[in-house]
Amino acid sequence: MKRVSRRARQVVAFQGERGAFSEEAARKLLGPAIEVLPCQRFEDVFQALDRKKADAAVIPIENTLHGSVHENYDHLLHFNLPIVGETSVRIVHNLIAPAGVPLSKIRRVFSHPVALNQCLAFFAKNRQFEKVPFYDTAGSVKMVIAEHLTDAAAIASAVAAEIYGARILRRSIEDDRQNFTRFFALRRPEDARRLPSKPKKNAQWKTSLVFSTRNVPGALFRSLSAFALRDLNLAKIESRPLRGKPWEYLFYLDLIGRVDDPACKNALGHLRELADLLRVLGSYPRGD
Amino acid sequence: MKRVSRRARQVVAFQGERGAFSEEAARKLLGPAIEVLPCQRFEDVFQALDRKKADAAVIPIENTLHGSVHENYDHLLHFNLPIVGETSVRIVHNLIAPAGVPLSKIRRVFSHPVALNQCLAFFAKNRQFEKVPFYDTAGSVKMVIAEHLTDAAAIASAVAAEIYGARILRRSIEDDRQNFTRFFALRRPEDARRLPSKPKKNAQWKTSLVFSTRNVPGALFRSLSAFALRDLNLAKIESRPLRGKPWEYLFYLDLIGRVDDPACKNALGHLRELADLLRVLGSYPRGD
Repeated sequence: MKRVSRRARQVVAFQGERGAFSEEAARKLLGPAIEVLPCQRFEDVFQALDRKKADAAVIPIENTLHGSVHENYDHLLHFNLPIVGETSVRIVHNLIAPAGVPLSKIRRVFSHPVALNQCLAFFAKNRQFEKVPFYDTAGSVKMVIAEHLTDAAAIASAVAAEIYGARILRRSIEDDRQNFTRFFALRRPEDARRLPSKPKKNAQWKTSLVFSTRNVPGALFRSLSAFALRDLNLAKIESRPLRGKPWEYLFYLDLIGRVDDPACKNALGHLRELADLLRVLGSYPRGD
Repeated sequence: MKRVSRRARQVVAFQGERGAFSEEAARKLLGPAIEVLPCQRFEDVFQALDRKKADAAVIPIENTLHGSVHENYDHLLHFNLPIVGETSVRIVHNLIAPAGVPLSKIRRVFSHPVALNQCLAFFAKNRQFEKVPFYDTAGSVKMVIAEHLTDAAAIASAVAAEIYGARILRRSIEDDRQNFTRFFALRRPEDARRLPSKPKKNAQWKTSLVFSTRNVPGALFRSLSAFALRDLNLAKIESRPLRGKPWEYLFYLDLIGRVDDPACKNALGHLRELADLLRVLGSYPRGD
């Protein structure tokens, strides 16, 4: 707490340039008045929080098109940085240009290749635009502005346009509107009780855990009995093979409930009897 | 059968440029003597097979760092194109340059941003190289060769170097050697019995299915009893929330066994009683 009071605003680490979708998630989770710490790699984000260069971290954990971010599950297991909140952000791509550059002047459109490929219908309708791959969505807005390009636009989030003082020429040009990314907010264990935002009264809670079993057929079924026998709802289950250990699996599981509810506590005690490894990654108010 | 006999070699559709990791998977699954049909989007790959422009398709389904490719599960549900084989490819990144361009001359390195970010240790050791994002890994080799660049290299698969007649200057420069992608081979239903390659004697079989349940706690547990009660091993289970339908989930499940084994047949009959939707995506010899 002392450390935080020294800082005027809390510092939040995330991966990517300013204006990345992670920054949008960070604002949703931790309020608009945060100081941001953009990092190059996910591992850097975890280290920044662990080494107290940041007060919180925000990481993507799964996307409706691309699945779970296993790398971040690995970091969650390796670092001891509990999840304290979750939210979902719809991935909305916008055509963004420097102020004063009209649509009719644009010939080149910069963005991350994944974003360019998520706007194919837009490019099919606007054949005068050349797609130019860039290392980052928000970074492409930054570059177009910094270089004073007069024939170029970028594809990125609305937050990126705001941050770099650029203008949105076309909103929501993505092909698939069902593209959502789920993010976690993390704290250091000693700060985890200070919630990222006040949960609504009667807000549901979720608890995320990782466990492993040696042999799947009976073992997973028995593991799930710990929850089914106590009428606990699951919100996610996913297996991941442990490399080099045939028939051993990690399971990611989210259950509806708070870790200190009696039924949850009993279920986790029961699961501990059956699992080789069991780690509670955090218990947090359910996001939108 | 008629259609195939008209063609000298079978045509295999995949997403990406020639030399993509999908092409490496296609050669592993269907032999070196295939004719390839590179497609822009995953949907195009499915359509090419469905509309008989290709005899088989090869798609990535999950990656050890990035998780399941939900988009391809969606296409598997939408199209009726059974899985007939699986394989895993290790994602090995190589520094590739035109013949005659020595390492000492290289200043710019082109590749897909995801690949550039998977070689950070290499770039940290070689600070003279500028990272230049490009839309595709194999496409960056193609471009470096086509443009006769004398100060540039690309990062891509060994197959890409071979296809475009380029030279590998440094092999395996990726940070993480535990980066594997699992691929499926698909056929049209009428061709599915013609296997992509002769399975080894006593090869294990896998069966992939998708099912949905209305309410998770009891329902998933009961669904898994169909397999546990028959001592069937699972190789994968993953839930995916159905958007707009709270508490309804799709489950992806791979089990060890052939779809026409008696225990499998009975388990699927049992599961059909419990599930709202059940689709068998294919039954195929287990890959490496």
